Amino acid sequence: MIERIKAVQMGCGPIGRSIARLAASRSSIEIVGAVDPAFSGHDIGEIVDDRNLNGMKISDDARSTIEQTNPDIILHATGSSLEQVMPQLEQILDFGVDIVSTCEEMSYPFFHHPKLSRKLDDLAVRHDATVLANGVNPGFLMDVWPVFMTGVLQDVESVVCIRVQDAAHRRLPFRKKIGAGLSVGEFRQRVADGRIRHVGLPESVAMIAAGLGLHLDDVVETIEPVVADHEVSSKDLPVAAGQVAGVRQVANGLIGGAEIIRLEFNAYIGAEGPHDAVYIKGLPDLDVVIKGGVHGDLATASAVVNVVPRAISAPPGLKTMIDIPPVAAFR
Amino acid sequence: MIERIKAVQMGCGPIGRSIARLAASRSSIEIVGAVDPAFSGHDIGEIVDDRNLNGMKISDDARSTIEQTNPDIILHATGSSLEQVMPQLEQILDFGVDIVSTCEEMSYPFFHHPKLSRKLDDLAVRHDATVLANGVNPGFLMDVWPVFMTGVLQDVESVVCIRVQDAAHRRLPFRKKIGAGLSVGEFRQRVADGRIRHVGLPESVAMIAAGLGLHLDDVVETIEPVVADHEVSSKDLPVAAGQVAGVRQVANGLIGGAEIIRLEFNAYIGAEGPHDAVYIKGLPDLDVVIKGGVHGDLATASAVVNVVPRAISAPPGLKTMIDIPPVAAFR
Repeated sequence: MIERIKAVQMGCGPIGRSIARLAASRSSIEIVGAVDPAFSGHDIGEIVDDRNLNGMKISDDARSTIEQTNPDIILHATGSSLEQVMPQLEQILDFGVDIVSTCEEMSYPFFHHPKLSRKLDDLAVRHDATVLANGVNPGFLMDVWPVFMTGVLQDVESVVCIRVQDAAHRRLPFRKKIGAGLSVGEFRQRVADGRIRHVGLPESVAMIAAGLGLHLDDVVETIEPVVADHEVSSKDLPVAAGQVAGVRQVANGLIGGAEIIRLEFNAYIGAEGPHDAVYIKGLPDLDVVIKGGVHGDLATASAVVNVVPRAISAPPGLKTMIDIPPVAAFR
Repeated sequence: MIERIKAVQMGCGPIGRSIARLAASRSSIEIVGAVDPAFSGHDIGEIVDDRNLNGMKISDDARSTIEQTNPDIILHATGSSLEQVMPQLEQILDFGVDIVSTCEEMSYPFFHHPKLSRKLDDLAVRHDATVLANGVNPGFLMDVWPVFMTGVLQDVESVVCIRVQDAAHRRLPFRKKIGAGLSVGEFRQRVADGRIRHVGLPESVAMIAAGLGLHLDDVVETIEPVVADHEVSSKDLPVAAGQVAGVRQVANGLIGGAEIIRLEFNAYIGAEGPHDAVYIKGLPDLDVVIKGGVHGDLATASAVVNVVPRAISAPPGLKTMIDIPPVAAFR
């Protein structure tokens, strides 16, 4: 009999819950604990809506949970900022436990956070543990997937990824997060405050460059409102013509002033023809489209859970998804 | 300064030439020798049409070429049958040299050739060498790519890959190979003789199953003519209505009688809307299309050359592309 992989869920917000739910559904994985100070004492089974987990209390203390459960892996979903989650990662790595994280800035941190990356890599190697971040974006659609597709090309001149999501049927918090219903002025204020931003696009640019062996001079990012030209109200959120329907965020990778990589992230209410696309100029050109696009919420949980066996068998250190053999949906 | 990778081209037919040409164009690779008894004594530079290789004679003897050039890798393109190329692979592995091969049956040989696979793996491990096969198909479009795409899915029920190639503008030998211009009776005779068959489709089915952790009960294959319903003559090859325009080859992976995997390879003159597609039924479904499809001849050379750095750094043994981190076009 094959031993089941023992996993602790750390972070029990919406994404953490969907990860725990999927992990618990896989016969090869056993959830042995959960940690989140915000939900301390709650029953993880109730929060995740999975009877098999009923009776397991969420702890506020990672250290004691790890000591008591001796997990093979931590499923880490507590934040997007590498600097902010760093103390949590250090605490886990002290125990030599592997980590798969949703932390967007850790998806490819070597370009934007070289010092933290070195520190994290050193710590992981010293404790014989693997730490990596995964998700649908960053982690797949706008970085690993386009790099993977170049494998059958003779040469690459430029890479463009376009993501178009119709936010109409997404959760209200998501629609608010992309600025739907705001005036253009309010939108720009929130961008200036850092409150409207999909985290990870510059990291994806850096990951593509690394995958292709390119040395970027600069990575730049712009965040613009998509303004509704007619009313696009959705459930509980009115959006009149002239108001913001959502966001268009673009990140560019530049070499000698030339745009080698362009990632365009569109999420707005009423977007027509949602899709994910990779357009590569090269020898030959390549034009790949996922019709309808990939569902972000389902896919992030998938990406985190699917990489678990690979993370456990990977060599120690801070890894990224371009270091890891193809990850598949498994039972 | 980084040392260049020293490569010997083994097999100097059309595919071998395109591999050598691409490898020679990469600043990180140096072609140090070429072996092919059929072109013994010829100048590889002339055959490949690359002045930088002028003056290098093609040898008929792999052993002496390896001894004299001490290569890091052999670019192996001599045949589709694992059994037939086995003695060549054994000879190379005796020297502990890594191998990237186009041998279709080696792309995932564990299902159809378990004994040869074990033998090859043992030999490679013993000599601390890596041996793997790659190509666009098998090796990418109908196996590694669909497995890779499942990485963002929660569950997979079935995988369908469709390849549609319009053969009208392909080389005459390719059009003849797919049976264009034959009568249906002649076509079926050639299928029975084994003369019309794209090698590697069952291997792709087995690779997908392995990637998804599925245990197939059976892999079946059918080869049918695509009959022209109007004249589709192309350069130097008349094809009247009622004659064969090309081939439709289908391989299925079955579990308990149910079709879990279906690969459909279409190559015929006049095919409309050429493309490569992956359709996955799962949670959620996924629908991915490469518009126009991937150019087979360019892509096979790309796949072989692009994997060279990964093959050199991979652990010893017989590997397949689902064991290898994403391969990218590099300089």
